[in-house]
Amino acid sequence: MTRLLVTGGAGFIGGEIVAAALDAGWDVRVLDSFRADVHGPDASGDASGTGTPIDPRVEVVTGSVTDPADVARALAGVDVVSHQAAKVGLGVDFSDAPDYVTSNVTGSAVLLAGMADVGIRALVLASSMVVYGEGAYLGRHGLTRPPARARDDLDAGRFDPLDPETGLPLEPTLIDEAAPLDPRNVYATTKLAQEHLASSWARSVGGSAIALRYHNVYGPGMPQNTPYAGVASLFRSAIERGEAPRVFEDGAQRRDFVHVRDVARANLAALDAVQTGSDAFRAYNVGSGHVHTVGEVASALSAAAGGQEPVVTGEYRLGDVRHITASSRRMADDLGWRATESFDDGMREFASAPLRAAVVSR
Amino acid sequence: MTRLLVTGGAGFIGGEIVAAALDAGWDVRVLDSFRADVHGPDASGDASGTGTPIDPRVEVVTGSVTDPADVARALAGVDVVSHQAAKVGLGVDFSDAPDYVTSNVTGSAVLLAGMADVGIRALVLASSMVVYGEGAYLGRHGLTRPPARARDDLDAGRFDPLDPETGLPLEPTLIDEAAPLDPRNVYATTKLAQEHLASSWARSVGGSAIALRYHNVYGPGMPQNTPYAGVASLFRSAIERGEAPRVFEDGAQRRDFVHVRDVARANLAALDAVQTGSDAFRAYNVGSGHVHTVGEVASALSAAAGGQEPVVTGEYRLGDVRHITASSRRMADDLGWRATESFDDGMREFASAPLRAAVVSR
Repeated sequence: MTRLLVTGGAGFIGGEIVAAALDAGWDVRVLDSFRADVHGPDASGDASGTGTPIDPRVEVVTGSVTDPADVARALAGVDVVSHQAAKVGLGVDFSDAPDYVTSNVTGSAVLLAGMADVGIRALVLASSMVVYGEGAYLGRHGLTRPPARARDDLDAGRFDPLDPETGLPLEPTLIDEAAPLDPRNVYATTKLAQEHLASSWARSVGGSAIALRYHNVYGPGMPQNTPYAGVASLFRSAIERGEAPRVFEDGAQRRDFVHVRDVARANLAALDAVQTGSDAFRAYNVGSGHVHTVGEVASALSAAAGGQEPVVTGEYRLGDVRHITASSRRMADDLGWRATESFDDGMREFASAPLRAAVVSR
Repeated sequence: MTRLLVTGGAGFIGGEIVAAALDAGWDVRVLDSFRADVHGPDASGDASGTGTPIDPRVEVVTGSVTDPADVARALAGVDVVSHQAAKVGLGVDFSDAPDYVTSNVTGSAVLLAGMADVGIRALVLASSMVVYGEGAYLGRHGLTRPPARARDDLDAGRFDPLDPETGLPLEPTLIDEAAPLDPRNVYATTKLAQEHLASSWARSVGGSAIALRYHNVYGPGMPQNTPYAGVASLFRSAIERGEAPRVFEDGAQRRDFVHVRDVARANLAALDAVQTGSDAFRAYNVGSGHVHTVGEVASALSAAAGGQEPVVTGEYRLGDVRHITASSRRMADDLGWRATESFDDGMREFASAPLRAAVVSR
């Protein structure tokens, strides 16, 4: 029987991986900090942030991936590790940076060093599409990668990257795993550093690691309205408060919204692969395969919940990318995984599903 | 008068930057941990690891870049920061990873958050050629980047990356700053994460940052024989012990050895530029512009010191790159800096120059 450790297993995505692994008959342990600023005030060693009790078949270790002693306790007797614990989102401002780095990069280093110590050789890592920076675009001379958008352009409402040659907006296209990596905010920096650490670890110890670059994950149990929540959750929370969802930029930002149950299944496929795989390190995009705009998500959620129509505000967050949509074909070809949840059904479900309690404000 | 903070200013490169800045008439403060495992047992708030007293014109703050209070003390009243503090080298094994991450990545995040707090907008960061991974090569179809070398190939003495198409060794060429980044060990991962943090910081606060990607820096005051020392220092230490310098692989690894005084001058040019510059983030290669092999360095040092002939051992370190030589042309074009010290003179001087005391073993 596979003995799996899920770090961050009380979280939004981690919790869904735990459920899927239990369904598969695996023996599951969770290492989770139950930090109030991540999980909300109701989280404890017994319950996730949604208030749902943790399945009694799961062994819970309360502790931090940044603490070598906690990590050693959590790793004892484990075959394979799913590393989901992370501080997510774009943060408030640059003063968040040290906490992002400690939680995500130091946490991964301590975990991987602990795995090296006890000879665990199989890892699946939660990564993100943000490692690409701006998505891929077709310009006059084929594939092109525009630089980060300037504050002046954003202030003037010029949201779409322009072709430096023609001055016309570039046409967004799907990005694949061979694309150059260009993290443009602190969170993205920490996710890429996690991948690089996993790659060094795999080469150093002869291990096998897969990084899953999640697209925009949504679904029941997603964290509520916080600076760290995803855009779908922010819309959902606004509708619930009786407010119109506020859509940044012009709402035409292209994304791929992938359901958390599909993401959990992708993780199980990857966990199988790293236990038998010989490749040191691989990265896979994990998306639904369907492109939607941020504005479409706001409209779908408002419609499903009978809420107010979305308002397009023109606001922006520096470091956000304009369009980022991935090809998940490599994951299908190599591991046989494909997303199966539909956008319409998923958004309808999400419009009224229980969310994770709001986190403690700082 | 420019008020400069040099983190790691008691170290090998930091100390030379301090000396150059004092010569330029700047007001200099140093933040240094004086960690025994970095600076050796003789380091203290009064003396660098070489035992040389710190210039009395320098204000010394003993503390860590990972400590927000130490950083705040060190930043008070400063115009521009030279961030040299780092744990360097390839390390012993993966158990070193958490300390590398904390020292280098968390340290940079805390420093940059502190700078954001007090409105300091100008930064020069010590980076490294290791962010490129393997250097650039010319294959059958032009510029190519081979994957990391496999343990099997290295064990069999196949050190040169092969053209996947022809099976013939690839021809190494100069790498420039536009090349893709591919850090292949923990140290390289932390250096690239520092660059990405500096870039995010600059965009977030409207600051100006330059990362200097040092080639193999050598010169008086270099740390002695440790797992963290550079290859020139290891050779020098072996010769001093009356042993033959042990050259790894076949000795034909191509590098660019740049003198620490040239590196200090490059830093001053960059420190000038970030105080007036508008570009958010730039990276420059810092090399001598002359390619040498590791074997040539061993021979030059042995000859200069009258030591034993080098021995080529065929040993290797996983994660080392085979050839990495950079073009420093962008730095010359943009900032007018060029290396001026000659290889022959520099190696002769280095063969008998005082080194930094051996670090405390772990």
